[in-house]
Amino acid sequence: MKISNPTEKLRQKLAEEGLEAILISQAYNRGYLSGFRGTAGYLLITPREAVLATDFRYTEQARLQAPDYQILQISGNGFDWLSRLAAEMSLKRVGFEARGITFAGYRQLSEILKEKTGLQLVPTESLVESLRLIKEPEEIALISRAAVISDRACGHIRDKIRAGMTEMEIAWELESYLRENGSQALPFEIIVASGPNAALPHAQPTPRRINPGEPVLIDMGAKINGYSSDLSRTICLGKPDDTFKKVYDTVLGAQLCAIAMIAEGMSGNEADSLARTVIAEGGYADAFGHSLGHGVGLEPHEAPRLGPGSTDKLTSGTVFTIEPGIYLPGWGGVRIEDLVMMDRGKIKVLSKAPK
Amino acid sequence: MKISNPTEKLRQKLAEEGLEAILISQAYNRGYLSGFRGTAGYLLITPREAVLATDFRYTEQARLQAPDYQILQISGNGFDWLSRLAAEMSLKRVGFEARGITFAGYRQLSEILKEKTGLQLVPTESLVESLRLIKEPEEIALISRAAVISDRACGHIRDKIRAGMTEMEIAWELESYLRENGSQALPFEIIVASGPNAALPHAQPTPRRINPGEPVLIDMGAKINGYSSDLSRTICLGKPDDTFKKVYDTVLGAQLCAIAMIAEGMSGNEADSLARTVIAEGGYADAFGHSLGHGVGLEPHEAPRLGPGSTDKLTSGTVFTIEPGIYLPGWGGVRIEDLVMMDRGKIKVLSKAPK
Repeated sequence: MKISNPTEKLRQKLAEEGLEAILISQAYNRGYLSGFRGTAGYLLITPREAVLATDFRYTEQARLQAPDYQILQISGNGFDWLSRLAAEMSLKRVGFEARGITFAGYRQLSEILKEKTGLQLVPTESLVESLRLIKEPEEIALISRAAVISDRACGHIRDKIRAGMTEMEIAWELESYLRENGSQALPFEIIVASGPNAALPHAQPTPRRINPGEPVLIDMGAKINGYSSDLSRTICLGKPDDTFKKVYDTVLGAQLCAIAMIAEGMSGNEADSLARTVIAEGGYADAFGHSLGHGVGLEPHEAPRLGPGSTDKLTSGTVFTIEPGIYLPGWGGVRIEDLVMMDRGKIKVLSKAPK
Repeated sequence: MKISNPTEKLRQKLAEEGLEAILISQAYNRGYLSGFRGTAGYLLITPREAVLATDFRYTEQARLQAPDYQILQISGNGFDWLSRLAAEMSLKRVGFEARGITFAGYRQLSEILKEKTGLQLVPTESLVESLRLIKEPEEIALISRAAVISDRACGHIRDKIRAGMTEMEIAWELESYLRENGSQALPFEIIVASGPNAALPHAQPTPRRINPGEPVLIDMGAKINGYSSDLSRTICLGKPDDTFKKVYDTVLGAQLCAIAMIAEGMSGNEADSLARTVIAEGGYADAFGHSLGHGVGLEPHEAPRLGPGSTDKLTSGTVFTIEPGIYLPGWGGVRIEDLVMMDRGKIKVLSKAPK
């Protein structure tokens, strides 16, 4: 899937930045701009040209997936092809992605380009990410379809889950369901964490068998045409203990409060503090150690960040999670996460699984 | 799984390089050295200290998985923690991984460290990778277990596959089998490419239904305790056409020749040219556009590289693939891939699936 003319929008940004061209090396940005879904390659974009350079394994695929790009077959890891193109196009000032290339890659790039062609390499940050931040209707549609699949998987596991099942069995039951109901390879490994394991916010499923009365924290996502969903629920089989009730109600209160009160244009820090205040007032300030949420799109974690110190703005068209949690070492934890979008001034909740 | 004292071996390398400390930021290297399997964090290793810095989500997990490391809880993406530690330890010359940090990350690191502490940052390459290159017996055991699972999956799909199944159905049948028989989340997305799609060496499975007489190229791997296998077979339902027979025999000949003739100490380039010569003599020189193989371990693609121009040495204890292929646009392709190790002078084939 390629959304409506992102390359043209990037060209406007190049003009604003005074760049004659940009080298795109970040994988998700490459896919977003060109439609190409292979795992190796670069884009070189100028006001008039759009080149996708990739190796033999992917050139056929690139021609099919990126019809608006000129496909250049390259070999090895060097940047000779770029040095040649830059000379042909008489480029003098080329941007590159400071977060999309390793330090070693930069040195290689800079040796070839500066020495051979004398051109100026300009580090850029978030040029493409700032386009990806605001989702187009066709992107929202894909994310929503992914959210429906994870909602259904949540309903499925509520019917299937029994005391005595292992975390790994539950995780595989979920993964099979997601994949057999339309998800591509999952955007991240499913978390199923029971009892004390649920005190690890990013636990990996273990052979531990779940018991009645303890928290079971589940975090999963689906992927449709490259776009992800993200959903967490914490459930309890049988009669929950008093801690569970208190912790669950505090997390739910914090989550609902954030959903109700986050408004368009708020910063990630302001959004985070809404939920953080509720949790602190419940007496669990130290037990909510992660951020309130993160953007979701082609990457399961992308901008905006909702967390302490984040100046990211929650503008219309952003899609992100709201996922407060409380983690008590030795006992366990509770996290409740919905996927939402900022839609004409208000939060619209995309995930519908019951809480 | 943490192999026998890799941190100690890295310390010897630090001494050889004249480094007082090294910052490890590459994810697989972090896991290899410490045993920690979370997705975020850094190691700082000095002759006496070993620190794992990670955020709230992972500190509990880090304590469990990396008992030999001192766990430091950090927040945000900055390097303040490192600046503080470097000052406490009076470090003057610290290595970092040139391939394990982005250009933006390097700038952030260098601003904080150079300005605040005046220390010298030294780019390093492949220090940990060179340790990972030579597999320990416990690593070979895990890779071999992963190879057994992919061999069995290959047998399973030979029983199940029927004309009319889609590439995606076959890929999911394989993935389910691999996961239900002990594999962790797969190391890479399974390739099932039929007919003309098999001309794309790294095709993604599509809804195309397979027909008798055409090539069906399958490439898959399993993962056990972090270690991968990698296996490709090309099959044909019903009666193959003359092209299939000729192409298949040429690829098989090239593969068997490479297995028989690759010897300890050969370079990746020499190994590659053994198979490449056979394919060229069959008249398909232009149709084998990728490298002969690659190392396999914690990463599904790692050193050594077996390909044109590679000076990587195939020393005892290296584990790699041998996977020549011929790809004919419009018709399809054939690839045959085994996972092998260099074992006391000779190739030992770890994958046992029939060809």
